[in-house]
Amino acid sequence: MTVAAALAAHPSPAAQQDLLAAAVAAALGCSQACTACADSCLSESDVTDMRRCISTDLTCADVCAMTARVLSRQTSPDADVVRAVLVACIAACTTCGEECAAHADHHEHCRVCAQACQECAQACRALLDVLA
Amino acid sequence: MTVAAALAAHPSPAAQQDLLAAAVAAALGCSQACTACADSCLSESDVTDMRRCISTDLTCADVCAMTARVLSRQTSPDADVVRAVLVACIAACTTCGEECAAHADHHEHCRVCAQACQECAQACRALLDVLA
Amino acid sequence: MTVAAALAAHPSPAAQQDLLAAAVAAALGCSQACTACADSCLSESDVTDMRRCISTDLTCADVCAMTARVLSRQTSPDADVVRAVLVACIAACTTCGEECAAHADHHEHCRVCAQACQECAQACRALLDVLA
Amino acid sequence: MTVAAALAAHPSPAAQQDLLAAAVAAALGCSQACTACADSCLSESDVTDMRRCISTDLTCADVCAMTARVLSRQTSPDADVVRAVLVACIAACTTCGEECAAHADHHEHCRVCAQACQECAQACRALLDVLA
Repeated sequence: MTVAAALAAHPSPAAQQDLLAAAVAAALGCSQACTACADSCLSESDVTDMRRCISTDLTCADVCAMTARVLSRQTSPDADVVRAVLVACIAACTTCGEECAAHADHHEHCRVCAQACQECAQACRALLDVLA
Repeated sequence: MTVAAALAAHPSPAAQQDLLAAAVAAALGCSQACTACADSCLSESDVTDMRRCISTDLTCADVCAMTARVLSRQTSPDADVVRAVLVACIAACTTCGEECAAHADHHEHCRVCAQACQECAQACRALLDVLA
Repeated sequence: MTVAAALAAHPSPAAQQDLLAAAVAAALGCSQACTACADSCLSESDVTDMRRCISTDLTCADVCAMTARVLSRQTSPDADVVRAVLVACIAACTTCGEECAAHADHHEHCRVCAQACQECAQACRALLDVLA
Repeated sequence: MTVAAALAAHPSPAAQQDLLAAAVAAALGCSQACTACADSCLSESDVTDMRRCISTDLTCADVCAMTARVLSRQTSPDADVVRAVLVACIAACTTCGEECAAHADHHEHCRVCAQACQECAQACRALLDVLA
């Protein structure tokens, strides 16, 4: 993955490149893990117990994919928008991470996804802290 | 467009169907208007003056597309996530709408987009008010 | 929705504006109907019978959302890419439309979604015919 | 990034896990590289010469993001849809990769993006070969 290289090549790169690249990579990874987890839950024999997990996965996948895109733009970013996006991403990852963690002992995809959610929430919070 | 019908057919439809359908439709429309406006700005002879407009358009398009998806899910939505998403969408639409409004007298696509941003921000705020 | 106005305001609008605007609007509508149908299926008591429908809905939603964005760009579009995108969208809508049609008599959201898929496939095929 | 782990945890994982995981990871990376390249081009002093590059970047970002999602679903995938999606992704990456390669000697972000496009096209072609 070329996230750090792609961001550093901007003609006027933002400060905090390390935190930015970490958040973008974590959001991309979390979006994919959530998409895969929703799909895996759908094939489980206990799908009726996984409805909420599928729903939170799908929403977290959408929020994280959007976050990765917004953070990848260093041309005239609006600080209020970036902060609101990070807050939304942290909320989605926290909700989804807690739901997945509740199934982590019997579904490996939920364990993988819970970890991806936790990493993304942390990376977004670290970036938000320096932007606040 | 079948937004209202698609939402109303849910086995356990959310309260506030009218506000929900209005927000989803406005977010879809704003996402498309922003994508088209960014593309139109790119073909203008004064493209160097439209850089910030293109950037805010692209981010607003991403945030609105995500918002339309999240609001379209009525199975176990998390209230904190929905509120944070609406706040982010209002921020993106407000920023982009103001930028586009500044070009509305010489670029018709900016006038169309500014209006779509304003309508989306209003629809999201109306929904947020009843969810708060 | 301002699809036609947003597209017509481009400084060098593509030929076939009517077909283009119809395809963009149909793709946006189908993407939303598929997202809502997947979510509705997830809340049905017969969710175990709706797994394939949920999966085709989610994929069709992604393909249609992407198609609406790609078709909204009239600055230097690549004809090969546009045609390949339309072919993929027609395939996704045909597959999803057939799956939803099989459930249309007992799930209203599947009936709404099957119609949206059919309309999108037709609009994309009409555009593809003039671009081929 | 947890792409391989997330896919392998599916209750009925698809054959060709290695090719699948490689294609998903390449599509995610390419989508991000294209989003960042479009944004970097927008800030270049020669932005008027980069219009086509920005446009192909934005479309390639959308097609790759969609491809990563569709390939991440192993529950009842439709072979015709998957193949059409891969063909569209190869077309978008080939077009964008050639455009970026033409600017690679004076814009580092175009060099990074051209490479990401080439890797994604190759990974999708390798998967398409075994699915055909």
